[in-house]
Amino acid sequence: MTGAESILQTAAAAGVKICFANPGTTELDFVGALDKVPQIRPVLGLFEGVCTGAADGYGRITEKPALTLLHLGPGFANGIANLHNARRGRTPILNLIGEHTTWLRPHDPHLNMDIASLAGTVSDWHREISAAETASSDTAEALAASLYGQVATLIVPADHQSAAPPTETISQVDFSFQSPDEDVLAHAVTMIGEAKRPALILGHRALRREGLAAAAQIQAKTDCALLMTTFPAYFDAGAGLPILQRIPYFPGQARKLLARYDAFLMAGASEPSAFFGYAGGITSYLPDKAPCLRLDTRRQNTAVVLEELSSLLGPDVGPAELHRLLSQCAVPDLPAGPLNARNMCQAIAALQPEGCIVVEEGISSGASSYDYVSCLKPYCQLTLTGGAIGMGMPLALGAALAAPDRRVIDIQADGSAMYTLQALWSQAREKTNVVTVICSNRKYFTIELESLRAGNTAPGKAAKSLLTLDQPALDWVNLSRGMGVPATSVNTTEAFIRAFRAALAEPGPYLIEVVLE
Amino acid sequence: MTGAESILQTAAAAGVKICFANPGTTELDFVGALDKVPQIRPVLGLFEGVCTGAADGYGRITEKPALTLLHLGPGFANGIANLHNARRGRTPILNLIGEHTTWLRPHDPHLNMDIASLAGTVSDWHREISAAETASSDTAEALAASLYGQVATLIVPADHQSAAPPTETISQVDFSFQSPDEDVLAHAVTMIGEAKRPALILGHRALRREGLAAAAQIQAKTDCALLMTTFPAYFDAGAGLPILQRIPYFPGQARKLLARYDAFLMAGASEPSAFFGYAGGITSYLPDKAPCLRLDTRRQNTAVVLEELSSLLGPDVGPAELHRLLSQCAVPDLPAGPLNARNMCQAIAALQPEGCIVVEEGISSGASSYDYVSCLKPYCQLTLTGGAIGMGMPLALGAALAAPDRRVIDIQADGSAMYTLQALWSQAREKTNVVTVICSNRKYFTIELESLRAGNTAPGKAAKSLLTLDQPALDWVNLSRGMGVPATSVNTTEAFIRAFRAALAEPGPYLIEVVLE
Repeated sequence: MTGAESILQTAAAAGVKICFANPGTTELDFVGALDKVPQIRPVLGLFEGVCTGAADGYGRITEKPALTLLHLGPGFANGIANLHNARRGRTPILNLIGEHTTWLRPHDPHLNMDIASLAGTVSDWHREISAAETASSDTAEALAASLYGQVATLIVPADHQSAAPPTETISQVDFSFQSPDEDVLAHAVTMIGEAKRPALILGHRALRREGLAAAAQIQAKTDCALLMTTFPAYFDAGAGLPILQRIPYFPGQARKLLARYDAFLMAGASEPSAFFGYAGGITSYLPDKAPCLRLDTRRQNTAVVLEELSSLLGPDVGPAELHRLLSQCAVPDLPAGPLNARNMCQAIAALQPEGCIVVEEGISSGASSYDYVSCLKPYCQLTLTGGAIGMGMPLALGAALAAPDRRVIDIQADGSAMYTLQALWSQAREKTNVVTVICSNRKYFTIELESLRAGNTAPGKAAKSLLTLDQPALDWVNLSRGMGVPATSVNTTEAFIRAFRAALAEPGPYLIEVVLE
Repeated sequence: MTGAESILQTAAAAGVKICFANPGTTELDFVGALDKVPQIRPVLGLFEGVCTGAADGYGRITEKPALTLLHLGPGFANGIANLHNARRGRTPILNLIGEHTTWLRPHDPHLNMDIASLAGTVSDWHREISAAETASSDTAEALAASLYGQVATLIVPADHQSAAPPTETISQVDFSFQSPDEDVLAHAVTMIGEAKRPALILGHRALRREGLAAAAQIQAKTDCALLMTTFPAYFDAGAGLPILQRIPYFPGQARKLLARYDAFLMAGASEPSAFFGYAGGITSYLPDKAPCLRLDTRRQNTAVVLEELSSLLGPDVGPAELHRLLSQCAVPDLPAGPLNARNMCQAIAALQPEGCIVVEEGISSGASSYDYVSCLKPYCQLTLTGGAIGMGMPLALGAALAAPDRRVIDIQADGSAMYTLQALWSQAREKTNVVTVICSNRKYFTIELESLRAGNTAPGKAAKSLLTLDQPALDWVNLSRGMGVPATSVNTTEAFIRAFRAALAEPGPYLIEVVLE
């Protein structure tokens, strides 16, 4: 038994099943240990952002941590952007970072970096292992931290990986949710009673089936509005769920929506505020002086908190009464006409199978996918939680490995896709059921839009060169095939419908480049 | 005039000519300002690692800082690995990072991160601008710091970018090298006199033409050996220069070489030590008790220090006497036989044009390129300074933009190439004269080798899956064409010679996938 094996054994005992890895020389003991801990499946990513994004996707579907295995500071740095998204989305992840042998570090070898400082920027919990003896207990502690919806990071010097720990590995992780706070819930009941138009803002775990069921009861009992955060990590969608209004991205629209309400209860969500600091100075989206209350903490199970609140508000309403509040299935027709983002999203909505997982990193092009949230057969959707682009293709990889029997559809902006396109290779290697729809508008359209909004209505040559992705146009069919994923390009709505249908009918990954008008 | 313009004007006045950029909403004022400061050419990279690697390549060729323009914490994080290489190679770079508007930051918007902590890990100098008023002076200070061979980073909140600074921009950067330290040089003279077999270890600026000329004189006067660091940022190579022995990568070989000498003077180099902490515990490569002395500091010009040392050692020897120490031109024949890494490197050496720039990130496959350092027509070579893979293709982009009239040849490992393959698109867009030679061995061969060395002689299925890049094999012709760079694949030595010759004869970028035996 080595320190590395001790860590993997502890993780396996806690139910960890997968490790997204890009190891190097300082992780060789982990590589060897993976042969001895067959409960954990290693998945190679050809860039660390693929590993961390895949761990995020896996964690969003299973609510269990995946491991990542990353090489020193530079390897971890390459994974930071997608860990930022995971941290914002409260995905459980345990990163294992190999570190130089302790006795070499004072000599500042070439690859030496301040890993702890890097780790601190995206980890809710991080620690460097100080000896093989504590490898198991450190791992158990890290896993427990992750299960609260946190990114945990263990830095493991190579000599502690190879040393033999004298103690047994820990087979149980000490983790449990705290009970709901009765005072907070009592206050919430009062707030709802006093408000004329209360709203419940739901995020994170509140957007899973159990949380939504409790929210529907609260709505039935109080007539409060149900809102959802703009960029949740995961939400259950489709017919039979309460109808939620998504808080808009732009401050003006968001303020306008929220101005309708006079009290806000938040579950799995913090106070909604602006994405960027636009001229005009909007920070919070809530109306001034409207009371707001956070119902839960990270250490509580949001669904249980909502159920408890619901029970304080009176006995549950029956199915018939509830039914009028819940969404009905009304799949849209197949679109006709120009191949624009709207028609593309409508076609996806019309054809997506029940139980599918939609990854939405379409940025500007994916916006109208939210129009169909309530009217389709049950599915779930994952969004860009932290704004760090390059999430979609890795996330789809991880989600597909978490749910091999489900279809994953990745609505993927072209500019964002370029950040982590290496994920396609892992999709091919692991034979994942992912259909990637590249929204090829050949520009950073959102930034162009933001530039216009900021008043730069006549960008010059220099500015334009930084916002466009043409000259040369990316050829996504070649890029995809280069990594082993079959692909086609379409430029009419009819061709897209045909290609998307065909892709859904075949197992394994497929990519469709949608050349948008 | 805005804060952003003030920064760019200051940089332009200091001679900055290029900005490798991937901006977002928090950098829109910089985007607009680039239209108003035409002296600075914006070059778009589709991933930040491309931008930072290109800035490294540009800086290595020109010894002047390029700008990077990066989006918030996640964008900067994506650029860290190649900034680590730049820092290790002492390349001057000035990073500009857009930061959230100051008044929004307390609300912790989605993309908010601790940028200063990230910046600190790879920057020799970093600061957040506190007002538009100081934008120009902060920039001048950052540029001066960079000119000492340092990575400098300015974090610029969006509101300070758009605010109007009342003062004039600074048009002169306060930068000069310190004089050599006479005490250190006197000590060096004594050391050389007392040693039986002294060695001069050259790195960084000592490996440019002027430093090498001084080193040759020192060798002629003292009969000292000339060694070079294993992974220098840049070295002038080819006939007419002194013959240097490169310190080997593996500790055993390095210790063996250095055991021949009994005193070490280091110029542009610190004490050579192990890359990784292998069993056996080797840290420093120098023989025990051998005296060693660093001749220069970062604030001194290493070439001037060497010239000064040379003059203390006596009058210069004449050209005839010097000639016997300098290398002679002896271009190797074109190879025949199997297409392995050795023959590939020999063919490149045989065909590379005078004045070319060789970027070497071949890892295991590029090793024998160093066999030809002394015998070719004059050229220069850039290596993987910090061990963070994914350097080569961005570096080649930056080097080609720094020297548009020269040929850049990138000897590029396939595993490393996948890290930042987006650089090919910028190579195509900017029409750079880069020939990329992909060494396609379809594995992480170095890690496999290190694994063997560590005693794991029979890796199991899990371990093997993490070290191989086949299943599916990457198709570099498709990947390259997908980004607009024409390409071909070869699997015989004859075909490689033909393709490489043809690529050198045409302007613009080209990629050759060399499928190695």
